[in-house]
Amino acid sequence: MKDWAYLTTVEEMEEATNSLLENGKKVGADSWQQRVKNQTPHCGFGESGTCCRICSMGPCRITKKAPRGICGCDVHGIVARNYLRFTAGGSATHSDHGREICHTLYQTKEGGNYTVKDPEKLIRIAKEWGIETDGKDIYDLAHEVAETGLLEYGKPFGTQRFLKRAPEYTQELWHKAEIEPRAIDREVSQSLHMTHMGCSSLPEALIRQALRAGLSDGWGGSMMGTEFSDVLFGTPKPVDTTANLGVMEKDNVNIVVHGHDPSLSEMIVYYAGDPEMIALAKSVGAKGITISGVCCTSNEVAMRHGIPMAGNYLNQESVVLTGACEAIVVDVQCIFPALGPLSKCFHTKFITTSPIARMPDSEFIRFSAANAGENAKAIVKMAIENFKNRNPEMINIPSLKQNARVGYSVEAIKKVLDGVANSQVDEFGTTKPLIECVHSGVIRGAVAMVGCNNPKVRPDSAHIGLMKKMLENDIIIIASGCAAQAAAKAGLMDPVQAKEYCGDGLKRVCELAGIPPVLHMGSCVDISRMMILAADIAKDWGIHISQVPVVGCAPEWMSEKAVSIGNYVVATGIETFLGVDPYSKGSDEVTRLLQGEDGVKEWVEAKFVVETDIEKLGDKMIACIEDKRAALGI
Amino acid sequence: MKDWAYLTTVEEMEEATNSLLENGKKVGADSWQQRVKNQTPHCGFGESGTCCRICSMGPCRITKKAPRGICGCDVHGIVARNYLRFTAGGSATHSDHGREICHTLYQTKEGGNYTVKDPEKLIRIAKEWGIETDGKDIYDLAHEVAETGLLEYGKPFGTQRFLKRAPEYTQELWHKAEIEPRAIDREVSQSLHMTHMGCSSLPEALIRQALRAGLSDGWGGSMMGTEFSDVLFGTPKPVDTTANLGVMEKDNVNIVVHGHDPSLSEMIVYYAGDPEMIALAKSVGAKGITISGVCCTSNEVAMRHGIPMAGNYLNQESVVLTGACEAIVVDVQCIFPALGPLSKCFHTKFITTSPIARMPDSEFIRFSAANAGENAKAIVKMAIENFKNRNPEMINIPSLKQNARVGYSVEAIKKVLDGVANSQVDEFGTTKPLIECVHSGVIRGAVAMVGCNNPKVRPDSAHIGLMKKMLENDIIIIASGCAAQAAAKAGLMDPVQAKEYCGDGLKRVCELAGIPPVLHMGSCVDISRMMILAADIAKDWGIHISQVPVVGCAPEWMSEKAVSIGNYVVATGIETFLGVDPYSKGSDEVTRLLQGEDGVKEWVEAKFVVETDIEKLGDKMIACIEDKRAALGI
Repeated sequence: MKDWAYLTTVEEMEEATNSLLENGKKVGADSWQQRVKNQTPHCGFGESGTCCRICSMGPCRITKKAPRGICGCDVHGIVARNYLRFTAGGSATHSDHGREICHTLYQTKEGGNYTVKDPEKLIRIAKEWGIETDGKDIYDLAHEVAETGLLEYGKPFGTQRFLKRAPEYTQELWHKAEIEPRAIDREVSQSLHMTHMGCSSLPEALIRQALRAGLSDGWGGSMMGTEFSDVLFGTPKPVDTTANLGVMEKDNVNIVVHGHDPSLSEMIVYYAGDPEMIALAKSVGAKGITISGVCCTSNEVAMRHGIPMAGNYLNQESVVLTGACEAIVVDVQCIFPALGPLSKCFHTKFITTSPIARMPDSEFIRFSAANAGENAKAIVKMAIENFKNRNPEMINIPSLKQNARVGYSVEAIKKVLDGVANSQVDEFGTTKPLIECVHSGVIRGAVAMVGCNNPKVRPDSAHIGLMKKMLENDIIIIASGCAAQAAAKAGLMDPVQAKEYCGDGLKRVCELAGIPPVLHMGSCVDISRMMILAADIAKDWGIHISQVPVVGCAPEWMSEKAVSIGNYVVATGIETFLGVDPYSKGSDEVTRLLQGEDGVKEWVEAKFVVETDIEKLGDKMIACIEDKRAALGI
Repeated sequence: MKDWAYLTTVEEMEEATNSLLENGKKVGADSWQQRVKNQTPHCGFGESGTCCRICSMGPCRITKKAPRGICGCDVHGIVARNYLRFTAGGSATHSDHGREICHTLYQTKEGGNYTVKDPEKLIRIAKEWGIETDGKDIYDLAHEVAETGLLEYGKPFGTQRFLKRAPEYTQELWHKAEIEPRAIDREVSQSLHMTHMGCSSLPEALIRQALRAGLSDGWGGSMMGTEFSDVLFGTPKPVDTTANLGVMEKDNVNIVVHGHDPSLSEMIVYYAGDPEMIALAKSVGAKGITISGVCCTSNEVAMRHGIPMAGNYLNQESVVLTGACEAIVVDVQCIFPALGPLSKCFHTKFITTSPIARMPDSEFIRFSAANAGENAKAIVKMAIENFKNRNPEMINIPSLKQNARVGYSVEAIKKVLDGVANSQVDEFGTTKPLIECVHSGVIRGAVAMVGCNNPKVRPDSAHIGLMKKMLENDIIIIASGCAAQAAAKAGLMDPVQAKEYCGDGLKRVCELAGIPPVLHMGSCVDISRMMILAADIAKDWGIHISQVPVVGCAPEWMSEKAVSIGNYVVATGIETFLGVDPYSKGSDEVTRLLQGEDGVKEWVEAKFVVETDIEKLGDKMIACIEDKRAALGI
């Protein structure tokens, strides 16, 4: 057993949280911890997926005495319809984020609020899509690519352009299974149509559509979100930052960015560095301005600017409870409506900015690409002017803080690999050095660790526990979303120390390549990066994606997006391990289709594994990786 | 009081149903009546909209002890999110039906399975959309219009083309309220995004989006569904038919079409008339082939071919229970999964045809525009060959049957009005003669009567009761969907007798114009026809839509589509009366926004009225119409 002493433990994080909750009590603040108590136990019908509210004849609930809904739908149809709707909700949400990014790209101009920061990537995508690039002004090209991207949401014919990035074998599987996604929004609409009263109740058809809707996200909307964010804001490169609540600074104006879309946070970061704003902060008695992040917006700005990460999903109330948060500025998704009333207990300004995410008890500053600069400046100013309203007695910033190296895009990983390649014999810009490590057994395999927090799992315990277990077993982790932040908060992305706690093989690789053993790959839309990496590895290796010793894992997921992700990761051929059931346990047929050998596994060569015992979940992941190795004869 | 003796009463229909249920008992058939008993009482949380299953931290249910979900969302946010999702489900479903029609139009060709039957309408729409028509081959034009229509689902910029059909004043209201729908599918996806965990919880924002998603249906997807169905299959004209279960014929092969998309049923109707098929039917001992319909597919083929209507939504099991149904052939929407097991109790073939509506215990014949002819022929043949499997002892066709004149498209209504216009002074092709009748008080106003059946209301009692009440009060009815079929089954569309039961003014109009007092306007997508009619009346009259003495009413609705319809009817400026609550009563704020004076009413000059006491509902409708008259000083 390794000595993990330098790491921040879950217990230490809980201690900090408890101290913050004490802070909150003084001012009558509510908390998710309290609301979980109020909402427990949950409705058993809802939790098993056996309640249907799709038409107003009901709601209907399936029991032994009432084995069918009023329309005659049985439990399998009801569970499968709920599952598909859950997926569609996630796919629509991720993809709509991607759409906003496309619109932002469409609005770029020389010297504008938004510009093209990675022209090389833009040109690469344009060529991939058959768009003429020669001699074209980069902004004309940006607009043409953006418009082509926007049409991926609604084109009348054809399938997603990025599907061609997958190995041909995978594309054939998708074609045979009839799950190649057409226009992204069409898959969303069709999912709602199929689940409408009196349409599909055949689980197989509904689960196939779930895979298709998922693929329209992962290889469509999310992938465009990621790629065009890189074009707009730069493709991430390794950068050092810090993580956990201790990144907030007592003497500074603290602005916390939260949500998902980098279009807002990029601007906030920019204006927080503006000398005029810093001077203003000083004029109100602060030493400076600290931007930190929560949730995926945090991942976006950490990866590109080294902005510190205050925490992940279940820390969003904590940042306000420190009493030192002048403003929490949010865009879209995963934002607790609780922040409204909570901010009223403190001096904190709760600033909403998107028409997509309107919340009571917030100040709404409508953010638009055209006025992004102005909007961001107004927000930073509002936060600075709020510094004076602090109650010094309420300030309580936990001292937890870890170093983290983040920003491992696929491009960055390949660059790292180039550094260890033999310049005499090796091809550059490939994943081959990594494949060699896996082939030789120095690394046993990889886990893509993703997803949220969920009070149903002790916060971060599954993320951190599983990562430690994998590292000890020479399994490298690529992480995104709140899972990545859990690693960073714990210290598992520390570029110096974390490698000490790995198995010998993985440790050697970390030293040689100068990487932490948990690679931060970005936000939740960036799971599309993982798909590209998996595809490239399979192609470079000459095997199918399903043969690569890699698995996906979301041990603490909570959002519809996570289920959409699960669907596209599985559909890509990667076995996916969940620590929370997707409201599907009420139907053995749906469970068989998702988790058995003759459902999705037959169609796409991968399946879901749902296991709420996290220790067992880890064992199953290792077994899966070792089985894949054995099948390859390595 | 009038003597309604010739009408078929709800009691008589119930008697017939009970006799059929006795039939079913002999073979162990389940029924919706039994399942309603099993499912009663319904979950109070679900019924009031106060349960949230949008993320997997829950489900959460709002009570006094637990006033917020785990994320902190309050009851108003939860109810409003559920309401928007309900609307989005309906909008997606209607619009996806419209999309299929666009794709069918795209596949038309000279001599093909599908051809252009109303080139005049096609050219009219092309001109409206700015598409060059001169000297163009009609099929080239059809494909161009179809592709333009398909882009309405996913175009990156701009709003729906058909919005321009509304009065300018209405368009301005939509613009000011920010509810002009952009691409149809985008509104669906954005609705899911807004309601995703951690996005919008502000009821006002969610209700605005519900109006927008509704408008993308009514003035987008549904309107294209209607218009292009007319182009493909002909614009409806008055035609005589019969209605109620007695339309099935004991000695014939009975094929029942059920669902919504006319692409399938048109082909079935065509092949059922094929001499080869009739000869085949005779060779198996039948006298011929009878096609009859259930639900909106029935409305489609009744309006265009006079195909008899066996019944509406809650009659779909009845047609099988007659023991004389050789095949029930379905496309999409509102099809009971119960038909699978039920058909197994009889000789009936339950034939599903659409990948959108896959059901267990059915025979799936995948219908496609390319193979439509073959598919339809195979289905008709399968039904004929099944005739020999009847059990003569199980045959029980109720003798209920009424005459009905159906097929009142806007074009047909205008033609009727031209017939009563004074050729010396009046303009032709307008609604002015109708306006004169309303202005003078001969007709007091109109009710657009739409929607489904729902076991929460005694089947058809509200439709028929309200219609009788309106007719007595000189209020003309335009009806669609299952409401229209209720009228037809009762005899209220009888072109000879029904007028006898109207007030003197309306009776005189019916006699003069040769129309029944309840005008059959088609299926549920055809409520878009009603929008065009309302817009034309407002323009011809020179007043706003909200001033016209017309209201909408769905007393027995059950599907998400109905709520989407409600949203666009209200957003168009027409007060809408519901007999079933849209799972919204759990929030007084949402109730106020939908039903009060300072919510939707402020934005679009109309609101919802929810009243489960049907007698009161009728009184309120009459009062609303009279109030509008008084405000106009007429």
